[in-house]
This record gives sequence, structure tokens and C-alpha cells, in this order.
Amino acid sequence: MAQTYQRIVLASRPSGAVKPENFRLESVPLPEPGEGKVLVRNHYLSLDPYMRGRMDDAKSYAPPQPLNEVMQGGTAGEVVASKHPKFAVGDKVVGPFGWQEYGVSDGTGVRKVDTARVPLSAYLGVVGMPGMTAWYGTNKILAPKAGETLVVSAAAGAVGGAVGQLAKLAGCRVVGVAGGADKCAHVVHDLGFDDCVDYKAAQGVEGIAARLKDAAPGGIDAYFDNVGGDVLNAVMKRLNPFARIAVCGLIAGYNGEPMPIIDPRPLLRDRVKLQGFIISDHPELWPEGLAELGALVAAGKLRYRETVAEGLASAPEAFIGLLQGKNLGKQLVKLA
Amino acid sequence: MAQTYQRIVLASRPSGAVKPENFRLESVPLPEPGEGKVLVRNHYLSLDPYMRGRMDDAKSYAPPQPLNEVMQGGTAGEVVASKHPKFAVGDKVVGPFGWQEYGVSDGTGVRKVDTARVPLSAYLGVVGMPGMTAWYGTNKILAPKAGETLVVSAAAGAVGGAVGQLAKLAGCRVVGVAGGADKCAHVVHDLGFDDCVDYKAAQGVEGIAARLKDAAPGGIDAYFDNVGGDVLNAVMKRLNPFARIAVCGLIAGYNGEPMPIIDPRPLLRDRVKLQGFIISDHPELWPEGLAELGALVAAGKLRYRETVAEGLASAPEAFIGLLQGKNLGKQLVKLA
Repeated sequence: MAQTYQRIVLASRPSGAVKPENFRLESVPLPEPGEGKVLVRNHYLSLDPYMRGRMDDAKSYAPPQPLNEVMQGGTAGEVVASKHPKFAVGDKVVGPFGWQEYGVSDGTGVRKVDTARVPLSAYLGVVGMPGMTAWYGTNKILAPKAGETLVVSAAAGAVGGAVGQLAKLAGCRVVGVAGGADKCAHVVHDLGFDDCVDYKAAQGVEGIAARLKDAAPGGIDAYFDNVGGDVLNAVMKRLNPFARIAVCGLIAGYNGEPMPIIDPRPLLRDRVKLQGFIISDHPELWPEGLAELGALVAAGKLRYRETVAEGLASAPEAFIGLLQGKNLGKQLVKLA
Repeated sequence: MAQTYQRIVLASRPSGAVKPENFRLESVPLPEPGEGKVLVRNHYLSLDPYMRGRMDDAKSYAPPQPLNEVMQGGTAGEVVASKHPKFAVGDKVVGPFGWQEYGVSDGTGVRKVDTARVPLSAYLGVVGMPGMTAWYGTNKILAPKAGETLVVSAAAGAVGGAVGQLAKLAGCRVVGVAGGADKCAHVVHDLGFDDCVDYKAAQGVEGIAARLKDAAPGGIDAYFDNVGGDVLNAVMKRLNPFARIAVCGLIAGYNGEPMPIIDPRPLLRDRVKLQGFIISDHPELWPEGLAELGALVAAGKLRYRETVAEGLASAPEAFIGLLQGKNLGKQLVKLA
């Protein structure tokens, strides 16, 4: 076993876009787990858009990421030493170990997973937090009925891809919104969406709204929003009465950009329900949701794509790429 | 009985603010009710902000008010002739007779009311559509819990005044937002609100937000929105986690003014539920709601103010005044 391991801490808070110098790679001694503790070798680190918000020292639903501490984040790995009665060497686990190659824990937030039918990495994606986010927003907020039309933005991302497939399974017409022809092709051909609007090619609110009119000719009944901004404003022009909007992310404004909702009139006229949500508010639903998602993945009914960066040192660049939309599906960093 | 009666039709659609010339007063022969019909002498006409939306020829939740036809609206009056088995001369009724002194009906939408403990005019206000609007938005959308803080805009209006009192009965701290010191004094001293923000004196989003910080020091858990615009944007800065917003009206934009939601981030950060609603979507709840409201009025637990214009010819000016916020409480026109 290595005598040291690598970790990445937050060196400074970004002003505007995240830059590589906001992070610092450190090498630290490998600890021994004490009594009641477990030592985990992390195989995969999950990179997620929510991390951008934590990097700011602003009021949010979670405390900010502390400076000079290990970047927080979900990981999947293997127990390599244990003085904890519930964990044995060789156990595959997911946990909150953050941007580092190893982690020690008293077991809080660490969960054993079964990799017989679902690969380890999927527990950070479609059978993990992003999958639960899709499952909750789709089933508990949007509750789309067969025959309705659902639109999801960031459709080629880990959450969006799952949302669209869950809505297809519910009998909906599903339209993705994504940036670029490659992502749109993936969403339609690999994930089975009915159509996909390339918001970059459509250029602006009116252009996106025009494409949505073609792609969702019967109007939009449900919108899973990961981005806000132009896409949200375009969707607002095409809502049906009693439409639902689940606000899961506002990537368009992650660097402080203005992102007004230009015209709120449809909220009243169409009696819209809009609900912001954070999946960590709903821990009681995870067992049910993860069981469903795992069964769908094992049965081949829920597909997913991963973009995997190699080695911890690549995490900052991969994270910046994620915020710029360079990934397809779940963005991971392979650590071992 | 008069041989002719007066009515007001929509002469032209407004471009921007409503003007008196958008209406035309006509004198027409008084009809005899045919078999199965009832003739009603209208005593009160209800003037309501929703009428402004109907005057435009735009996509809305209800068809536009047709040109050269009687302005639609709710009325309260007395049966003066009947060939309908369910109505007798002398019955007090509310109905959809519009801006006219008399109306003939087959009974559709006409409801007998008991004026023993609740005055006839109140059935157009606190025990009518505005009261139901307050009841539904407060109880079914905002569902405020004891100890929470609820804010309501247009607090001195028919809906807002009822919202605040219902929330006080639920054990909330209640803060009104209204235009002018007189309205604020009414809301606090006559209706029992805890505080009231004069949005005109506060001048703009930041000023209103600063006053809300004083008036709602624990933040805002529930907001009943009648206006949109600056007040909504100010409230968004002071929301607590899991806040609810009921969107009932957007008066700030009734004449086509831009009224963006400047920063949607709190919707996600605070996991806000925002719900647009129209009370006419929920007819099944009217018997329950009206019974509750009537009992509260009869018991002296729910107070209301009326602003009464005299004579049908005064209706256009009174309606324009309503849109400009000149009324206190329910705006009525006394017809007989």
C-alpha cells in the first residue's frame, strides 16, 4: 500500500468562472484506520454541477466548501482496511470521501453496494445521486402522465438522460435540450428521446422556442430544468395549462450571470406549478428510488453514458469541462 | 318597472391603460322572462382585476370579452319576475349578469343567498369569488403553519385583506404590502395585520426588501402574490427555505409592462414551491369554502371593507380606479 496519497483542496474561491488555480493538489501520509473506522481506496470520484455553488461563500442550501480543505464529493471504492464491525476488506462502498484517493470514515454516509449486476461507477450516476435527482423530480414533482410531453434540459447529462428515459417509460413524448449536434444525437439515438433541441444552434430564446414548437407541437406539460436562462424562458412560451416545472439546476447562472425569468405571466395564465428541489432533502425516498433505478439498469431499461477522466490530477480540468458542458453523461474521475 | 335599462358594453380594446372610451353605455328595452327563465334586478356589480385581462384579445385562461357585448362580471341582486321553478320573486341571488342593471337567465350560475346574517354585497366579496380566491390560495397552496410569516400584496384589496386575516387565524405573523399610508393603516388597524409595507414609499425592489426585512425579521415562509413586479422581486430576496408562493395576480403587468423575475436562484436555493392558480378551476371547493367564510363573517372574525361607486354609469371610472389601486377593499358599483 502507498505510504502517501493525493488529495485536492480548495485553494481559493472563483470570481466568475472556475480556474485550475482555484484548486491545489497535495500529497499527504496515508492514515491507519483507528478503532471503529474504515479505510477506503476510492476508485471513482463523482463530479457534479452542485459543487460549483459550494465553491462560493454565499448563502445556499448547504454550507460553503471550506478553503484549504478537501473538496467535498461522492466517491465509489473498496474497503482496504477495517476496524469497523459492519465493513470488511474487499467491500465495495459509496461514500462522501471527496476529491482524494483514500478516505477514513466511521461509516457515516458510507454504504455497501452490490456490483454483481450494476457496475461500481453507476452508483455515482444513474443508481446514485444523479439518478435519484432524476427519479424524484420526474416522479414526485412532474408526475407526467402517458401522452403528455416532457422537456428536459442538459439532456445529455447524468440527470437529464435519466429523466428522459423515466418519462419515456411513463408513456410521454420526451424532448431533450442539449448543446451541440453530438449530444442531441446521443440523446435521441442512444437514450431513445423523441427529439432534441440544440440550444446552441437555435441561438437565443426565440430560436429555442421556435425549435420547441416543432419538437413539442402539442405544447409542454412538464419541464425538468437543469439550466434556467434562455431555455427556461423559451419553455415558458410553450407551456400547456397546468404545466409543472421542476427546478433542479440553474447552470446558466452558476458564474453569477444575470438570468431573469423574462415574462412570468404564463405562471398565472397556465396555472403552472414550479418547484425547486434538492435531492438531499429527501433521504427517506432513497431506498425506494435506488431499488427502482437499480432494477431498471440491471434489466437494460435505463441506459447511461460516462465520461471518465484518468487520475485525481485531472479532476480540476474535468470539473471545468463539466461546467462548460463538455461531458456526455456522468462525469467521473477514475482514481484506481 | 322601467321599460328600458342600462348596460355597458366593450366598445374597443385598450392599448395599454384602460380608458373610459373603451366602454359604451347603452339603453335597451327591458325583456320579459320566457318560460324557465328568471329576471333579476342587479343591486351590486363586482369590479375585479381579472376583467382587465379579458379586455385584451390575447391567449388566456378564459376567452376574451367579446366586443360590443355586455361586459362580463359578477352581480348580486333580487329576482323581480320568474317563470323558473327554483326562483321566486324576492329571492336574493348572485349571478354572472355583468355590467347591466337587469339580467335574464335560465338559472345557470345563479345562486340564491341568505342575507339574514351576511349582507348581499358581501357575496361579491369576502363570501364570494375574492373570498374563495383568498381561501384557496391561503389554505390549499400556502398552507401556513402557526408561527410562520406570511406576506400578501395588494393587502388592502378584497382578496388580500381576507388572505391576511385567514393567516392570522392560522397563527401566522402577517405582513401586508400596499400602496400608501392610508391603506397600510387600514390593513394594520382595521384588519389586524402585524405590519404593512408601503411599497410606494419604499421605492423599488431594494427599498421594499429593506422594509420587508424589518417587518418580517424571521424571513418569509409564504407569499400570496397579487401584483408581481417589484414586490415579488423584493419578497424573493427574503424567502426562507421551503417557502411557498401563490401567484394569484400580476397587476404590475396588466398593461403589458415588462415584469421580469430578476433572480430565480432563490427558487432553487430555498426549494420554493410557486403555484399559479385561478379560483374558477376549483368549483368543487366552493361550497366548503363559502360556508367557512360565511361563518367567519357572521361571527365577526373576518372583516371586510367596500368601496362603492354609485350607478352603472360610474363603473368605467371605478374600474380604472381599481386598476390604479384607488379602492380600499372590495370595489363595487351600486346599481339599485
